[in-house]
Amino acid sequence: MARQERAIETRKRLLVGAAEVFDERGYAAASINEIQERSGVTKGAMYFHFASKEEIAKGVMTAQTEVPVEVRSPSASPMQQAIDLTHELARRLRTDVLFRASIRLTVERGTFQTNDSDMYDWWLRAFSRELARAQGAGELRKELAPEDVAASVVGSFTGIQMLSHVTSAHRDLHDRLTNWWEQILPGIATPEALGTLLPAGSPGLGLSGGA
Amino acid sequence: MARQERAIETRKRLLVGAAEVFDERGYAAASINEIQERSGVTKGAMYFHFASKEEIAKGVMTAQTEVPVEVRSPSASPMQQAIDLTHELARRLRTDVLFRASIRLTVERGTFQTNDSDMYDWWLRAFSRELARAQGAGELRKELAPEDVAASVVGSFTGIQMLSHVTSAHRDLHDRLTNWWEQILPGIATPEALGTLLPAGSPGLGLSGGA
Repeated sequence: MARQERAIETRKRLLVGAAEVFDERGYAAASINEIQERSGVTKGAMYFHFASKEEIAKGVMTAQTEVPVEVRSPSASPMQQAIDLTHELARRLRTDVLFRASIRLTVERGTFQTNDSDMYDWWLRAFSRELARAQGAGELRKELAPEDVAASVVGSFTGIQMLSHVTSAHRDLHDRLTNWWEQILPGIATPEALGTLLPAGSPGLGLSGGA
Repeated sequence: MARQERAIETRKRLLVGAAEVFDERGYAAASINEIQERSGVTKGAMYFHFASKEEIAKGVMTAQTEVPVEVRSPSASPMQQAIDLTHELARRLRTDVLFRASIRLTVERGTFQTNDSDMYDWWLRAFSRELARAQGAGELRKELAPEDVAASVVGSFTGIQMLSHVTSAHRDLHDRLTNWWEQILPGIATPEALGTLLPAGSPGLGLSGGA
């Protein structure tokens, strides 16, 4: 391996090892020694890439924004694309420790971030945009503000995945999320759109098959 | 003050001081020295009441189950009582640091509890019971399992309060929760019940007036 390839590989191993430790213990209880041991890299290599535990956590956090917000949904419906995005995030939570750790770092207030609301704001904007498009397409009820519905989606998704994590290690997350969409869609979708939306996500996304 | 009264007072000050520190930093980052300083009690008094940080956290946790599940709702409707309970919990989150800290200790996995799902299970059972009563009263749609709706309520409440905490220090929690009930009630309530339910909570609970 060329030197640069090795460096990229080492950095990736450090991030995955750190994600495992953050996912299990949270930021405050994670030690830099444990991260180094879990990653199987030398102390020298670790400090070459990251000056501190905080730097490593920032690296893990960026994993969260690397999810394409425009998920490759086979549907042309903006509302269905919003539904599909939540299922794609659920799949990532089950299968991707980097993403899972970045979400845990987000939901634990006041541990290492200077501004705790940054990541929530990012997701609120993403879902507000999508739901505004759904309203333009006649799918979201006219009397609702897309921002208010986005707050319910982001808030509910956050808590439902935490509950599913604790009670089933995310195994029932797809079902819980599907139930939630079934329950909330009649109140937010227009009667015309309601019959065409799929609360379990579009087929062909490979979402329900578990990890 | 008699000796016993002083002891009760000291214990309460320790729990409130600990709750403030846990609420700000989470369990792992809280130090027992900081808890002692914040409470303004002596080290000796602290160790007389609690042998360890874990013991103090257990004391804070019990605050959560001391909320009367049968909230003093003026309504005879079980579904309205479930709605009122979420607003009562929201009010406690805004005004009661002990309750707020106990919720934070619940949502941070793997920090000090042996079984993270205990508190979630407790709330799931409480809401399942209430929603089963609502189904018996013809308020919850027959085709829904009360347990599935309870999972949505507990999950959504958890995440919506976290989002509200980070973005507004819980100031918009009553409105966010009201929006959420407005959005989900059409999908879970029977058409007959829907017109009589109050998403913002029963009047007379004094819930919307802030802290």
